[in-house]
Amino acid sequence: MDILFSDITVITMNDHRPVMYHAYVGVTNGKIIYADEKPPVEEAASVINGCRRLLMPGLINSHSHLPMSLLRGYADDYRLRQWLYGHIFPAEAKLDDRCVAAGVRLGIAECIRFGVVSYTEMYFKLRQIAEAVLEAGVKANITNSVMCLDMEKFDFEKDRGVMEVRDVLANYRGRGEGRLMIDAGIHAEYTSGPAAWRKSLEFAEENNLRFHLHLSETKPEHDECVKKYGKTPSQMFEESGVFTRKTTAAHCCWVTEADMDILAARGVTAAHCPVSNLKLSSGIAPVIKMQAHGINVALGTDGVCSNNNHDMFEEIKTAALLQKYITGDPAVMPAYEAIKMATVNGALGQGRENETGKVLPGYDADLIMLNLDAPHLMPLNDPCAAVAYAARGSDVCLAMVQGKILYENGEYKTLDIEKIRYEIESYVLPRLNG
Amino acid sequence: MDILFSDITVITMNDHRPVMYHAYVGVTNGKIIYADEKPPVEEAASVINGCRRLLMPGLINSHSHLPMSLLRGYADDYRLRQWLYGHIFPAEAKLDDRCVAAGVRLGIAECIRFGVVSYTEMYFKLRQIAEAVLEAGVKANITNSVMCLDMEKFDFEKDRGVMEVRDVLANYRGRGEGRLMIDAGIHAEYTSGPAAWRKSLEFAEENNLRFHLHLSETKPEHDECVKKYGKTPSQMFEESGVFTRKTTAAHCCWVTEADMDILAARGVTAAHCPVSNLKLSSGIAPVIKMQAHGINVALGTDGVCSNNNHDMFEEIKTAALLQKYITGDPAVMPAYEAIKMATVNGALGQGRENETGKVLPGYDADLIMLNLDAPHLMPLNDPCAAVAYAARGSDVCLAMVQGKILYENGEYKTLDIEKIRYEIESYVLPRLNG
Repeated sequence: MDILFSDITVITMNDHRPVMYHAYVGVTNGKIIYADEKPPVEEAASVINGCRRLLMPGLINSHSHLPMSLLRGYADDYRLRQWLYGHIFPAEAKLDDRCVAAGVRLGIAECIRFGVVSYTEMYFKLRQIAEAVLEAGVKANITNSVMCLDMEKFDFEKDRGVMEVRDVLANYRGRGEGRLMIDAGIHAEYTSGPAAWRKSLEFAEENNLRFHLHLSETKPEHDECVKKYGKTPSQMFEESGVFTRKTTAAHCCWVTEADMDILAARGVTAAHCPVSNLKLSSGIAPVIKMQAHGINVALGTDGVCSNNNHDMFEEIKTAALLQKYITGDPAVMPAYEAIKMATVNGALGQGRENETGKVLPGYDADLIMLNLDAPHLMPLNDPCAAVAYAARGSDVCLAMVQGKILYENGEYKTLDIEKIRYEIESYVLPRLNG
Repeated sequence: MDILFSDITVITMNDHRPVMYHAYVGVTNGKIIYADEKPPVEEAASVINGCRRLLMPGLINSHSHLPMSLLRGYADDYRLRQWLYGHIFPAEAKLDDRCVAAGVRLGIAECIRFGVVSYTEMYFKLRQIAEAVLEAGVKANITNSVMCLDMEKFDFEKDRGVMEVRDVLANYRGRGEGRLMIDAGIHAEYTSGPAAWRKSLEFAEENNLRFHLHLSETKPEHDECVKKYGKTPSQMFEESGVFTRKTTAAHCCWVTEADMDILAARGVTAAHCPVSNLKLSSGIAPVIKMQAHGINVALGTDGVCSNNNHDMFEEIKTAALLQKYITGDPAVMPAYEAIKMATVNGALGQGRENETGKVLPGYDADLIMLNLDAPHLMPLNDPCAAVAYAARGSDVCLAMVQGKILYENGEYKTLDIEKIRYEIESYVLPRLNG
């Protein structure tokens, strides 16, 4: 075998044996080929000593806008309308190709460093994003979304989001050994309308695409839809046939019980973004209820403007804590279930459920290793509790995708972080602040 | 001067000039003697290059039980009664002097590494705790608390908490150049009664002590007090005169508006523990309302069993986010105000408001430096937002108390982390699990 993790604590996310101690995990040709507590017979070309280390599936960030990393701390503590129209949109209007290329690389560097191996992206300038994903070596489902505030003037073929998705489908689909996937996107119910959704559905069917969209993020948005159509956003998308395609719906803070039945029946994945939802006062998604309805719930960071980082360990912990709070029951969303949202459930949402999210032979070697030497991870009474409640992204000391190491002990193997910083300081910031 | 931080970004927590860029901070004899954007005339024996670093006051953890660090991940995701009586209390009963000595050192190591320079401790075996504080070089207000579930049998002089406080007053008061302070403690309203509180008040008056106690943490506890006495816990303590001493009250999730008037009038500090309160489903303290009433609100981690770390950066962010959530207003609790709770407000609660919590000449050099090289802190559009919303404890690369470096770039200067780990693995864990 190529690489052997030896004598290591493993969280497998395989329900039959969730945790292994003093275990061995072997990797060959980018795949996990061995995972057991007894040592393998076969020798390995390279052995990674797992003493005081923890191995687990790399995390999946199911909703993000990575190029916005450039706007980290750019406009915090504002109310939504002032924040969007007074600060974020004007700043985004200044972002050209070079800015997005630098921003998405900064975001991916942070993701990798904090243990994310696969992420879902909704943003513009998809060519820059696709190039960065291929260069960085991560997995990503990327989309730009249909967005049209004046549906009278809507022209599907001239919609920027549609044109970009068509472009990357033609030029990037299938590249990166399956790492790069392209989704169809609808920004949200309130930023387009049924005509756009029906066109989007045709487009998704023709190209065999999944959907990514925002759903019932804020109460006003949800309520205004009900006022306008007499139906909820979930009902509107269902009626337009959108959910006949596999869909990831970000936020879902205000979905009703009837909405939950629709989402569950259609196999929609809810991408819960607990930190962003608190920071913008959007609400707390009813995760426990959604799960009781049979909905697959994954986790996302959203963009840094409403977060302000991409630390999925923080999302795991915040998600678990908030459900304990809103249900009044500290026993709900135990550590293992919280981790599941950021691994197995995220993989299902991306359509990667047979390739990533578990430490199991046959899966891609999309793995992260945590250093347990730090005092905040001592003693290791419970590995799942350590990961869900005590760890930070900064505990990740190795991140690997398809068997290739992307980050190890402070060193980025594919991205040049100094060059990214230089580009941001010398080109992007003068442009943003000019 | 002894040490000069040069060309560094500084969050001063001095409202007149909260942030300085390319600044210089000089330290002599453990005190800050210089802080300005222009370089000092005087030369320094040692210069610390502040390029891509951020300097700020060290953080203050206003409520904790550090020796419980031994029980990290020991019993998560249980309901309160089962958690306390089935797991935590039986485990704590096994902790002897050696265990507490190791546990408090582990906890202090984590605090220092995550940028805490002063903390408030309520636990047993105060001699072990005092020794560890002196050895580690941090500041601490320590207490053991009166706790008696059968008030019929209560004997103040034989209460373990009281005896321990008397003992450390006699043997440790004033040691460590003012770093070690000793408080009087009352565990909580529901674990003793008015007779104990009146005795405690006399004791605190005789010895000129501050109080540390738990207040209205859970709704059942608050409501049962009202049922039993016709008064809230705050009203009960007020009636018994407890609040005539300066007091830090942990939690305050369920204090009423009338309670807030009492706490404000008496100058009581509320030690808000947002992570612990979520994890145990206790609630969300009404911080914005308390502040509107004029109450000083500080932040604490509580013990790791309900957290599971001592990362005060996480408490800052969680505190800000939760207030945005419960008020429905993303503009409340802006970054700078959130940081204030973990610095200036914590110092006031400990009675250290003239010695720590600000980067200001005349204050003790209780400082921390953050490394801004990591992608999650780029670009630095707003230093306060970076600290409140993006940073993790692990970004701290230097922690200093009274001008003495306690932690720098992975190295503990006063504590021997390897020895602590060895003691825990070879002595404590076999005892706990035996």
